[in-house]
Amino acid sequence: MRSFASDNNSGVHSDIIDAITSANTQHTIAYGDDVYTHEAEQVFKNLFKADVDVYFTFLGTGANVLAMKSSAQSFNSVICADTAHINVDECGAVQNFTGASLKCLPSVNGKISVSDIAKELHSIGDEHHSQPSVVSISQPTELGTLYSVDEIRAICDFAHAHNLIVHVDGARIANAVAAINVPINEMITDTGVDLLSFGGTKNGMMYGEALVVFNKSLSANVKYFRKQAMQLSSKMRFISAQFTVLLNNNLYIQLAKHSNSMTKLLQSKLNEISQIKITRPIETNAIFAKVPVSLIEPLREKYFFYTWNEEENEVRWMTSFDTTEEDIEDFVSCIKDVIG
Amino acid sequence: MRSFASDNNSGVHSDIIDAITSANTQHTIAYGDDVYTHEAEQVFKNLFKADVDVYFTFLGTGANVLAMKSSAQSFNSVICADTAHINVDECGAVQNFTGASLKCLPSVNGKISVSDIAKELHSIGDEHHSQPSVVSISQPTELGTLYSVDEIRAICDFAHAHNLIVHVDGARIANAVAAINVPINEMITDTGVDLLSFGGTKNGMMYGEALVVFNKSLSANVKYFRKQAMQLSSKMRFISAQFTVLLNNNLYIQLAKHSNSMTKLLQSKLNEISQIKITRPIETNAIFAKVPVSLIEPLREKYFFYTWNEEENEVRWMTSFDTTEEDIEDFVSCIKDVIG
Amino acid sequence: MRSFASDNNSGVHSDIIDAITSANTQHTIAYGDDVYTHEAEQVFKNLFKADVDVYFTFLGTGANVLAMKSSAQSFNSVICADTAHINVDECGAVQNFTGASLKCLPSVNGKISVSDIAKELHSIGDEHHSQPSVVSISQPTELGTLYSVDEIRAICDFAHAHNLIVHVDGARIANAVAAINVPINEMITDTGVDLLSFGGTKNGMMYGEALVVFNKSLSANVKYFRKQAMQLSSKMRFISAQFTVLLNNNLYIQLAKHSNSMTKLLQSKLNEISQIKITRPIETNAIFAKVPVSLIEPLREKYFFYTWNEEENEVRWMTSFDTTEEDIEDFVSCIKDVIG
Amino acid sequence: MRSFASDNNSGVHSDIIDAITSANTQHTIAYGDDVYTHEAEQVFKNLFKADVDVYFTFLGTGANVLAMKSSAQSFNSVICADTAHINVDECGAVQNFTGASLKCLPSVNGKISVSDIAKELHSIGDEHHSQPSVVSISQPTELGTLYSVDEIRAICDFAHAHNLIVHVDGARIANAVAAINVPINEMITDTGVDLLSFGGTKNGMMYGEALVVFNKSLSANVKYFRKQAMQLSSKMRFISAQFTVLLNNNLYIQLAKHSNSMTKLLQSKLNEISQIKITRPIETNAIFAKVPVSLIEPLREKYFFYTWNEEENEVRWMTSFDTTEEDIEDFVSCIKDVIG
Repeated sequence: MRSFASDNNSGVHSDIIDAITSANTQHTIAYGDDVYTHEAEQVFKNLFKADVDVYFTFLGTGANVLAMKSSAQSFNSVICADTAHINVDECGAVQNFTGASLKCLPSVNGKISVSDIAKELHSIGDEHHSQPSVVSISQPTELGTLYSVDEIRAICDFAHAHNLIVHVDGARIANAVAAINVPINEMITDTGVDLLSFGGTKNGMMYGEALVVFNKSLSANVKYFRKQAMQLSSKMRFISAQFTVLLNNNLYIQLAKHSNSMTKLLQSKLNEISQIKITRPIETNAIFAKVPVSLIEPLREKYFFYTWNEEENEVRWMTSFDTTEEDIEDFVSCIKDVIG
Repeated sequence: MRSFASDNNSGVHSDIIDAITSANTQHTIAYGDDVYTHEAEQVFKNLFKADVDVYFTFLGTGANVLAMKSSAQSFNSVICADTAHINVDECGAVQNFTGASLKCLPSVNGKISVSDIAKELHSIGDEHHSQPSVVSISQPTELGTLYSVDEIRAICDFAHAHNLIVHVDGARIANAVAAINVPINEMITDTGVDLLSFGGTKNGMMYGEALVVFNKSLSANVKYFRKQAMQLSSKMRFISAQFTVLLNNNLYIQLAKHSNSMTKLLQSKLNEISQIKITRPIETNAIFAKVPVSLIEPLREKYFFYTWNEEENEVRWMTSFDTTEEDIEDFVSCIKDVIG
Repeated sequence: MRSFASDNNSGVHSDIIDAITSANTQHTIAYGDDVYTHEAEQVFKNLFKADVDVYFTFLGTGANVLAMKSSAQSFNSVICADTAHINVDECGAVQNFTGASLKCLPSVNGKISVSDIAKELHSIGDEHHSQPSVVSISQPTELGTLYSVDEIRAICDFAHAHNLIVHVDGARIANAVAAINVPINEMITDTGVDLLSFGGTKNGMMYGEALVVFNKSLSANVKYFRKQAMQLSSKMRFISAQFTVLLNNNLYIQLAKHSNSMTKLLQSKLNEISQIKITRPIETNAIFAKVPVSLIEPLREKYFFYTWNEEENEVRWMTSFDTTEEDIEDFVSCIKDVIG
Repeated sequence: MRSFASDNNSGVHSDIIDAITSANTQHTIAYGDDVYTHEAEQVFKNLFKADVDVYFTFLGTGANVLAMKSSAQSFNSVICADTAHINVDECGAVQNFTGASLKCLPSVNGKISVSDIAKELHSIGDEHHSQPSVVSISQPTELGTLYSVDEIRAICDFAHAHNLIVHVDGARIANAVAAINVPINEMITDTGVDLLSFGGTKNGMMYGEALVVFNKSLSANVKYFRKQAMQLSSKMRFISAQFTVLLNNNLYIQLAKHSNSMTKLLQSKLNEISQIKITRPIETNAIFAKVPVSLIEPLREKYFFYTWNEEENEVRWMTSFDTTEEDIEDFVSCIKDVIG
């Protein structure tokens, strides 16, 4: 079975499997005080050219929740796009764990701007209103679109000028870095991002994400929150070892570049099919398209995927690190067969 | 490095690694709607000879929290031993996620009895008091001791007669089943247990636990709670595949039997050292002992382990699925060397 | 000092003071098991011509939170208007106490419609998304506008057809009943409302609101939630006695009618001032108006009030049960003086 | 009806009623920015001879929850007596609102000591364990007993040396001050207490308590927590005015002295009845006694009261500000009649 449903339908890259196997020797102290974890932490510091704190978690929702818990109290609000993963795909995990509220802004292709954020900055100091404390953006967005480095910097500058923390949900940050083609430290460290959820599972890992803390004043209690949020792995070396191999030698970029390029290939072939209308800018590894309603069920029987907007017959197709040109060709053939 | 600190300092059994590798082919639907997960669920049903619902989680705290969330509302209380993992080792995860309170009973070697529980059943219907809704016991206990099958049945009978749900924290359930040597369904299904946290990580798995629901009226919302509790793995097949191989052909019992037997071996050798006083009944894979204070630091440099009670110089040593006789001999030699 | 800031800037009606004084004899059992509370409960049953359950609380936020807690679990969402008090004026109390999320719909003059609600009913059964369980509307709305009886019935019918509970935030329900001039049971009981927050403080009481439960299946745990939500008054007779006198002989309607009529009077006088543009339909006891920016500070020095929308210079003025014609005349004079 | 069930079964002192009536003139700004509240705050500052922050709440549970929220994060624990009101009488409100855990120490007549507290200070910095951040004691205790000024100072000194905050649940603080007969500032301010829940309702007020913050670093977010905890009264002047009259001219001490003296009187008369065994030191306005089981129901029909310990036939009787000598005589007569 091959799938264009999501990049988490893929398996695990063979180098990751090798890393896990290699880490499976002897005993180590549990919960992260081990050489594999120390090494991985150093790899992150090198990558970001900064003395970051790194907290490994099991999944992206866990990293996001830790980020919000470290930057919002129960009376605070989190400013984000209406499309944000924390709003629509985490079953209220952030609200439940933090007690805080989300202020969801109407977004354009998943993006929000400084002027959108500015509108939420009223009633500051008024105890009747949840007080904004953090801005969370997704890079790339849930719609596969990108903030430019300048846009991220502008959001950080504005946020910091108004005592707001900036979090980036980077479940697919590798795809963003690969697409924009700047060093990740220029995109994240240098722009002033405070907290980054760094994704691994959607880019060839088996499980594991990382909360990377640039603003170390936010780290004070994260280790306690991580345990309480059920994100502290006992055999942590097996997450750490995955990250070390993923980040070393830029494997993470290489995998993301491939995934992005497969989307470009798919896009080029879809462009030849007049009944399919691409609906969003294609900037990473996701395609959104309006399709004939008659296509959806027959195609889904062979290739599972999600409908994004049922009223509009808008579907989402994603490629992943292991998508092949042959997969694309087969998929497009299948589409053409159904459309006839 | 070899360790007697905890069974989670060990690595992963080679069959588990093979299972992971074998599952790493092609794409599958994420979040559990895949053949590996369906197979593992069936394996659990067979094991317990019951139509159980199974919810895989990342870690034991996650399974425990889901169990409590499905059986306690915020105004309820959870009756447990003062030594319970949910009380002392989860950083308040249960209280934070459920809003409920723990009623921690003084325990004898980690165990509580029906008469202990009965004392908490006052003020029922009085809104000033948190209302007990669930009894949670650990099998084996945090002190390595065991409830007999009859004791579990007595707790279940009493609890059900008083509208209480029974949860078993079975992070090391395999060690209990191996030690008591009854079929697991006789210990759990037939006694009337409602909810079981079934441990994998401490018995040779890389990561992954399961909440097994026998009382299916409790299942209604567990899938939502699992997502909200950050326990829903996207590439779930890699947890499922581990469980299938662990449970098939009784590998889980075989590994636990070995671990238990290594503890017996260690016990027999420690008995020869007069300065070491074993403090608790040894029934599974843990030894608690008062040791000379001068032993602790030198020994810990070579073999990391935890002090259980600092005032008493009581330490905990555990064996695991991969502990060897040679490990035991080396460890005891080291002890003897230090003690002189 | 006289104020048009809010109807809670007023004092307490003299009949209410008398009721409190009359109840201040002898001892009674605390926490509501007293004759005053039993009488007040019966008064509510008579008013609504239904066997309702009534839970007195200290304040409206308390009644709203209890309503949400009884109808939403942590994985649920509450559908409401973006202008809803629970969204903008309660500092996230609902989200914090329930763990649930708000789905805030863009509203027209504070109102939402069946078609707005219908759009939120996607992804039902999908554990990634908070599941809608309740619709909360305000009657009158935060903008002083009204749902017709038919509109309330339509929302209830639609909601019930989709397994949603309906809550009405009636902090000013008396003003709605007075304005529409139908019996309150026709507006609330007969339309199928499940839960009503019945306001007292904004209509002449000193403190105290009531959660009225029509759908008694929702009552099971409210008494525990009320205690846990810090809404259980020990000397409850003093809330109960206020409600009995407020509801008997339609005092609550009489006070609201007066307040509404004072707003009409103010409106008529403001209509003569060309620089003041009324921005919302005036249906109860609130006026929203765009005013010259030069008016705001000088007027506020004499009459405190809130700016609703700073960008637009839109202010809110409210009348209350004790506003007099002379108050209106003085206020309008002051406006005219400032505007010049 | 006269009652010895609790001091909250009494009514309201006539001076308090007068204060409420006097405050019922004109309009004031809601939510506490009014002259009555400013005056009451000043009265508290004078009383404690310190620049305290004062937050009025509706009830004692509210003040306690605010105190805990301001001094404990979700990963923290609150050290208290097993008899503490926050443990047994608030339906888990603290745990639910803060997410934190209670560490309940076995107490002697409701009191805990420095050495009890010291035993909980292990595993500091270990993320598996909830981290103690605050010690909460009740003065007087739930059993009517008292900490001496020196005992309070010792707890504060120890706590502060270990980075713990000290909270005093003073629901009946007036009874403690009246009994010990030292200025309240010597008992609370000078000993180093950080947070005090100051009770009004059990000492002649209608409703209203105050969180008094001595350690102003804890005040930063209390105003938001108060709103979110549903404790912000809109017509706050009516709480403030009660407190001003209660504290002025030492009315609060006078009322508590009377209540304490009525308990002494009752004690002296009970001492003459051989079948009644007083079980606890009598230091304020509560008597605990083992009584013949045959006494309980007949007496309760005339005078409602609570059984404290059913197994022991231990009951609690309390006097209040308005208990008269005649009440005592009638009550004792009734007891004698039943016992025969």
